[in-house]
Amino acid sequence: MNNRRSGPGTPGKTPLTASPWKASHERERDREVKRDAVIRAAAREFNRKGYHNTSLDDIAARLEVTKPTVYYYVTSKEQLLFQCFVAGVERIRAAFREVRRSQAPGRERLSAVLRHYGEAVASEFGWCMVRAEEQDLAPAMSRHIKALKSEIDQGIRRLIREGVQDGSIQPCDPKMTAFALAGALNWIAHWYREDQSLSGAQIAAAFVTVFEAGLRPRGNGAVAEPAAREAPRRRARRTAAALTR
Amino acid sequence: MNNRRSGPGTPGKTPLTASPWKASHERERDREVKRDAVIRAAAREFNRKGYHNTSLDDIAARLEVTKPTVYYYVTSKEQLLFQCFVAGVERIRAAFREVRRSQAPGRERLSAVLRHYGEAVASEFGWCMVRAEEQDLAPAMSRHIKALKSEIDQGIRRLIREGVQDGSIQPCDPKMTAFALAGALNWIAHWYREDQSLSGAQIAAAFVTVFEAGLRPRGNGAVAEPAAREAPRRRARRTAAALTR
Repeated sequence: MNNRRSGPGTPGKTPLTASPWKASHERERDREVKRDAVIRAAAREFNRKGYHNTSLDDIAARLEVTKPTVYYYVTSKEQLLFQCFVAGVERIRAAFREVRRSQAPGRERLSAVLRHYGEAVASEFGWCMVRAEEQDLAPAMSRHIKALKSEIDQGIRRLIREGVQDGSIQPCDPKMTAFALAGALNWIAHWYREDQSLSGAQIAAAFVTVFEAGLRPRGNGAVAEPAAREAPRRRARRTAAALTR
Repeated sequence: MNNRRSGPGTPGKTPLTASPWKASHERERDREVKRDAVIRAAAREFNRKGYHNTSLDDIAARLEVTKPTVYYYVTSKEQLLFQCFVAGVERIRAAFREVRRSQAPGRERLSAVLRHYGEAVASEFGWCMVRAEEQDLAPAMSRHIKALKSEIDQGIRRLIREGVQDGSIQPCDPKMTAFALAGALNWIAHWYREDQSLSGAQIAAAFVTVFEAGLRPRGNGAVAEPAAREAPRRRARRTAAALTR
């Protein structure tokens, strides 16, 4: 299907229907790639200077094109902010779709989603996903964003419930746990910079390790958990006693 | 020392040095109470309408006083935002001071600080502590805030390290763990409203429970941990096998 034009790898073979115009599916692909570049450039500028301090001119300048070119791909700065949000959130939704097909225990599916979540927030779209103010958007867009956020929150709670049910997650309050997990991940957008020593994927993986392990130490195969938990307190008491001796 | 004026509880006892003016320590206390009320009112207004949309007139109106009265306690709106931040953070610093005197294991001291941290973020000062933009403040104030934030981050890391050392905290990366914990707590300011069913203290306690437990189930006294961890995966595999039969 894709042999309308011969590439440099097929010398001497003249295409039957040579045309100076690109095929429509190629034009479509081309447009998508360029639209994507506009959205990424906007995300980076919003992140760097804030939404109100960024103009479409800035975004055009970053791409070395004119403002009308940018307008060819998006209708307004507001729509651009909305699209940046959607682009980031779409990564998390894709992760949910992927784990839906998996038979792994709830905790593994949840952790996979949380890793993608963390990567999305640490990406160029993080600022728009987390720090942009909803009042900067028209009510319809704002409602759409609220609905997507709620979908993700509900998805996390569902995976937590499924994990508790299949025994892979510690019994817990799914709502509070979802809020704690998502909050920690959202906050990445407040401190992470792309030039840091760790990549977004590494940060996300480190956070998932923290969530999974919890602060309280775990017994190993040999030591039963309650004994391991009591030990430090006894040790501290001994220290206290030693100090007052 | 404090018997210059007799209260309603000491009838018939005329003070030796009756005076229509308040004692200086009473004036000082009075001023502090009023200054505190101004800061609280400002915190509530900033939270409700954002910093830029709040005027000193709004704050005066809320307190049913004139703007000059507000100016008697603070020199500018900017200083008010700074004081709101300091008031919130001071609660966390007080918690650090308190646990410094304690001989409890690291995890207990950390959890106590985190509970106060969560309560502070869920208080009227949460918005100023977390959501206010540092660029709204003069460089000197902004530096002061950065220093206080860093002090708290370092304090959390120190408690984590001490907990790992005394065996009360699971070995972990103190920096990433501190970022995950503080992030989850900071995010409370993005979703918590005072009219919600749970109090700030309840939210904070629920979060600490999540942090301490972690997602991975724990064996009880009878079951060694690794076995408990493997169970769900085996169960899932059986389910997968059943589905493909």
